[in-house]
Amino acid sequence: MHSANADRFRHAGLRRVLHALAADQLSAEALTRACLDAIARENPARKAFVHVAEDSALAEARASDRRRAEGRPLGRLDGVPLAVSDSLDVAGMPTGLGLAGAAPHAACRDAFVVERLRASGAVILGQTQIDEAAVGTLGRNPAIGDVPSPLLPERVAGGASAGAAVAVAAGFCSAALGPDAMGGARIPAAFCGVVGLRPTLGELSVRGMASILRRVDCVGVLAREVADVAPLLQCMSGYDPEDPRSRRRRTALAAPDWQPDSLRIGVVADLDALGVEAHAAQAFGRGIGRIAPLFRVSAPIELAIAPLEIAAARRAALLMLEAEILAAHEADLARASDGLRRLLGHAAQRSAVDYARAARRLDALVVQVRRLFERFDVLLLPSVPIGPPRLGAREPGNLADLTALASLGGCPALGLPLGEGHGLQLVGAPGSDLRLLELGEVIESVLGVEPGAVAA
Amino acid sequence: MHSANADRFRHAGLRRVLHALAADQLSAEALTRACLDAIARENPARKAFVHVAEDSALAEARASDRRRAEGRPLGRLDGVPLAVSDSLDVAGMPTGLGLAGAAPHAACRDAFVVERLRASGAVILGQTQIDEAAVGTLGRNPAIGDVPSPLLPERVAGGASAGAAVAVAAGFCSAALGPDAMGGARIPAAFCGVVGLRPTLGELSVRGMASILRRVDCVGVLAREVADVAPLLQCMSGYDPEDPRSRRRRTALAAPDWQPDSLRIGVVADLDALGVEAHAAQAFGRGIGRIAPLFRVSAPIELAIAPLEIAAARRAALLMLEAEILAAHEADLARASDGLRRLLGHAAQRSAVDYARAARRLDALVVQVRRLFERFDVLLLPSVPIGPPRLGAREPGNLADLTALASLGGCPALGLPLGEGHGLQLVGAPGSDLRLLELGEVIESVLGVEPGAVAA
Repeated sequence: MHSANADRFRHAGLRRVLHALAADQLSAEALTRACLDAIARENPARKAFVHVAEDSALAEARASDRRRAEGRPLGRLDGVPLAVSDSLDVAGMPTGLGLAGAAPHAACRDAFVVERLRASGAVILGQTQIDEAAVGTLGRNPAIGDVPSPLLPERVAGGASAGAAVAVAAGFCSAALGPDAMGGARIPAAFCGVVGLRPTLGELSVRGMASILRRVDCVGVLAREVADVAPLLQCMSGYDPEDPRSRRRRTALAAPDWQPDSLRIGVVADLDALGVEAHAAQAFGRGIGRIAPLFRVSAPIELAIAPLEIAAARRAALLMLEAEILAAHEADLARASDGLRRLLGHAAQRSAVDYARAARRLDALVVQVRRLFERFDVLLLPSVPIGPPRLGAREPGNLADLTALASLGGCPALGLPLGEGHGLQLVGAPGSDLRLLELGEVIESVLGVEPGAVAA
Repeated sequence: MHSANADRFRHAGLRRVLHALAADQLSAEALTRACLDAIARENPARKAFVHVAEDSALAEARASDRRRAEGRPLGRLDGVPLAVSDSLDVAGMPTGLGLAGAAPHAACRDAFVVERLRASGAVILGQTQIDEAAVGTLGRNPAIGDVPSPLLPERVAGGASAGAAVAVAAGFCSAALGPDAMGGARIPAAFCGVVGLRPTLGELSVRGMASILRRVDCVGVLAREVADVAPLLQCMSGYDPEDPRSRRRRTALAAPDWQPDSLRIGVVADLDALGVEAHAAQAFGRGIGRIAPLFRVSAPIELAIAPLEIAAARRAALLMLEAEILAAHEADLARASDGLRRLLGHAAQRSAVDYARAARRLDALVVQVRRLFERFDVLLLPSVPIGPPRLGAREPGNLADLTALASLGGCPALGLPLGEGHGLQLVGAPGSDLRLLELGEVIESVLGVEPGAVAA
């Protein structure tokens, strides 16, 4: 049943799918089968999935349909096909970390966020490609080369959560999870034309996600529309004693106000000094121009953030990241490429005092970012300083310079597509995730970027 | 006026002093003068203060009396003489860090907690001795040798907050602040027979306190009685954007329940395996015996914590601490002793990967401690594994082994005196500070340890 219909829902937003499942307009099995068929046809070219769990996904979908038929769905996500990146543990699947060659054994336990998705009834389709060791911004690893963007097929999808963004953009699943350390979800969201959220640090447990740099590691969410993100966040968030940086929720925020004028908005204006190229600056400027009417009473305030020297702090973080990968993944690194080994080798030659200096530098940036959010509720800036590079191009050094602001500051950040591989970022103070999502929905509705074919 | 009376209040608890000042039974000037006179007489032998701010303290006290006379006190602490350690900045005083020789220049701004004390009207008497660079557990630095315990004058006061504990025990001030990284407030509290609180990590800003290891650094509170601590904590706590680890308060806890039976109490029982010597174990056992009648309905549960390997994690933290001191205090270390230089030199020879490994080890311990507090509300254990060493003795390697549990876990811990230099520690889950203080008051009242001569 429903199968003729199901293929159209592959391109619908997750909320639309939730409604169709709840209203019995769609079966989980038909939708899952449509997703698996599309993956079988298109994945060799798309390179989104590294591992497809066809049998278990279909079994999960059938179980979901039975629960729905009995009127006892597990949770809001019951029957929704989702994907997670190759750095998130799924029990029974080998977590490959984007390294070449087979991982030595399968994970024996789901990552915290995967557990939460399953507890809400989600169907796990498989694991998606990431950059080698999740270090990288292009969507490139030695096993498969470059992952192309579905939006601009001659160009890279962006990384590290390349496959997750591609899977959502290509209609392989309703939403996907992937790492966002320095921008790993928001960069491919821009390059592939989807929505990417980096939540507040500590809001989603990273237990069971391969560590890059624990003081910035977040589980990022990739979806087609802003409204799809909140149900996932609500399902996955919560205190996890097994993640040392997981935090109990603070006092609930005042209900986020959809009236943009009630927020103090800052617009980053020193794009030249930040190395933003003309095309990216123009796309951002057009976006800001379109949303300007939202701020009729109090205009956004222009500000300069180059004095924060985020790129320099990001380079300091790189030493910590290299050291942490060496410390955390020693055994897996036998499968690393020479290039990655050379990169990580830097850390082995730096002293513990260098590490401590880098940590102090990041502490200082946290304080600067906090000061910023005493003046503003939300900052608007581009997601990426340049458009997606061509396939095979050399990796530019600055792709994460604009996403690192939120990462190093522990802030939530929402990336919206601006078209042609560009993106608009909304960054808020820690804890303001729901407010960002609410403002993001308003902004999305006036940006007018083609949201993909939504099934009726 | 009041001066005949004032000297008796030097030995009263801070709450008693607050009441006497509010009721006009005592003037701030008379009390401050009595404190300064006692310091002038006894400090050469006690070695509590490194710097006494006689003129400014008297001026502050007189200003407080004028405010009280006009019915406009600044806050609850108006007129109370307090001291802070030589690692906390006081504007106009040089922060010496326990190093030999004069600090090159005076601090230009008060530390956050000092600002808060002043905003509540407190009188700052001066700065108290700490171990060299605040690294050490005995109360020993090259400038003055060993600080003796007022309780057992042939023995050391304990460190790093040696002078703060001595100042409170000797009646030089009502309460004092000093660093507690691995136990720096709780060790001297036990050795000197006073109360020491390490608050939840991030509850009190450490802005303006010399860093030892930022992921464990706390401002500790030393006082004569448990009831004296809460007014200080309430005055000083609060979010500080300038401390990257400062946190907004979470949802208020349920009102702490003074009924001990309503809490799940764990008593650490594997004292032998933790290296606790016979005398210390006996003192702890006697203390537990005295408080046992409080738990009539649900008896405390005995548990073993040796499997947590806290001592090994503390040694891992030592590398991070050494590296951080080298990174943070490079200029000051020109004044360091050869011994300290040798210790810190280890870190310069360890790699960034060693640092990252140590950090991962501490992350794992945080998780273990969190699991512990899923089973218990409060843990009881000795503060120190041995009694205070003799003056001049070699520094034992294990003095901080029992205090490090709370430090590495980010937990609040309250140290109560058991007499003869021994102490009882109450450790709770992060955020449970007020509950610990309330239970601590009940326990203190039945322990029956001589609380010092309380003025009428």
